[in-house]
Amino acid sequence: MSDLKPWLKAQQKLVDAALKRQLPRENVRPSTIHKAMRYSIFAGGKRLRPILCLAAAEACGGDPKNALLPACAVEIMHTYSLVHDDLPCMDDDDLRRGRPTSHKVYGEGVAVLTGDALLTEAFIIIAQTPATKRYSAKDYVSELAITGGSRNLIGGQILDLEGEGKSLTKKQLIQIHEAKTAALLTSSIRLGAMTANITPAKLQALTDFGYNLGLAFQVIDDILDVTQTTEQLGKTAGKDEAVDKSTYPAILGLDKSRKEAARLTKKSLDALKPLGKKATRLEQIAHHLLDRDY
Amino acid sequence: MSDLKPWLKAQQKLVDAALKRQLPRENVRPSTIHKAMRYSIFAGGKRLRPILCLAAAEACGGDPKNALLPACAVEIMHTYSLVHDDLPCMDDDDLRRGRPTSHKVYGEGVAVLTGDALLTEAFIIIAQTPATKRYSAKDYVSELAITGGSRNLIGGQILDLEGEGKSLTKKQLIQIHEAKTAALLTSSIRLGAMTANITPAKLQALTDFGYNLGLAFQVIDDILDVTQTTEQLGKTAGKDEAVDKSTYPAILGLDKSRKEAARLTKKSLDALKPLGKKATRLEQIAHHLLDRDY
Repeated sequence: MSDLKPWLKAQQKLVDAALKRQLPRENVRPSTIHKAMRYSIFAGGKRLRPILCLAAAEACGGDPKNALLPACAVEIMHTYSLVHDDLPCMDDDDLRRGRPTSHKVYGEGVAVLTGDALLTEAFIIIAQTPATKRYSAKDYVSELAITGGSRNLIGGQILDLEGEGKSLTKKQLIQIHEAKTAALLTSSIRLGAMTANITPAKLQALTDFGYNLGLAFQVIDDILDVTQTTEQLGKTAGKDEAVDKSTYPAILGLDKSRKEAARLTKKSLDALKPLGKKATRLEQIAHHLLDRDY
Repeated sequence: MSDLKPWLKAQQKLVDAALKRQLPRENVRPSTIHKAMRYSIFAGGKRLRPILCLAAAEACGGDPKNALLPACAVEIMHTYSLVHDDLPCMDDDDLRRGRPTSHKVYGEGVAVLTGDALLTEAFIIIAQTPATKRYSAKDYVSELAITGGSRNLIGGQILDLEGEGKSLTKKQLIQIHEAKTAALLTSSIRLGAMTANITPAKLQALTDFGYNLGLAFQVIDDILDVTQTTEQLGKTAGKDEAVDKSTYPAILGLDKSRKEAARLTKKSLDALKPLGKKATRLEQIAHHLLDRDY
């Protein structure tokens, strides 16, 4: 298997090209909303979720091309959640991926509508995913909607808002991370696997992989918020502490948080065993995320 | 065919019961978001869109029970759009259906997330709609998402925001009404018809019906904003004039606006002819909407 970095670059290009094809062009009326949608989507994201989606399809013996539509959909859902989370009435952030946030450029009203439009577009796109023997639009749409909904992605943001200024237990923090981060990472992987007509048993293995990888990813993000600069992050550093948010480093300290990230990553890798050698790319990605400079 | 009013009441009850079953209960965690979702859904709405959905299924010879899920989905999508439209950064409204708006009760951050959660829930629900020989989840989801997206519902709200304080032409005003109102009314009808496995020709007839009815409905809403009190409307009256919004009465005057509403209603009724006697209920609803006290 080839080196990870050039492969990641190639996947990013594939995903970006698909997003460019799928999203309405800037000159489609009303152009304001389509410009604003593209502004937030093409802001230099790492495309982690869509790449996991494509890698999962490959790991299940499928053609990653069949996973391009759900790959776009999960990235668009992720981006909508960032646009809304950055609003003044939420996390009130001016910077995202090194650029002014949507409401700084387009105003709050348009930023709310841009998030809404991206969320809705994700469903336009995922509904077109090719059916397999086991899975169809009903399954793809349900997977994305349940993950994006009030019990997961949005529920996590509510818990996050409600937790500000409070001292959370480790258990409460894990609940937030499950809902805010692990759920969408897991669904990205599951959707890719479903386009490869995966068996239920292997789908469960990938679900366990995604869940633990997602938790590890969020612990590392919390650590980076403390240890990196705004320039390195592309978003405001030290933000969690400034708003008195409970994080892994705040609750466990940096050392224990690093160990926890490593433990969760190992657990995620163990879950991949039933997939054998085909899962090498997913393993590489997991190592790559763990080895971020935290 | 029985009188319209008791039938409307009975349909409202059916829709309310289905919404109660479909939405997550208030005690599902995090309870804040589920309480806020139910607060806005169970605020005494007239359920026009879901009732049109059920009536369309019946008019096509289908069992309205099969249309209950899309009926819930269109009402939930309509409600999300109201929650977001009422936000301070949008229309900034304190009253909706005679009660404080979501952000007045729960705060702006939770209101944004409540709209997001309702929008996402609409897709969880519509994906479960029973397939027919001609239509499946792919068609239902695409119909709802394209109507809710940046080219229609959200696009209309953008045009509306951009039009404030400007003098619009009648053509521009119609574009806003098509996108903001006619599109979702039309899709409500189309979705109901699709659950009855309607032929493409009859689906087109119903599309023409919905489009003209939707335009008529919005003209009447504009008129009522001028002629009724806040108490009668359950929302702030005179709002359009206060924010210098272009409306039918502002552009054409009240008399011509009333004539336009009647003309559009007649056009919608003419479109129903290919459906014959089965469409009586839809005709009754159109007359009922036209006969609102404007």
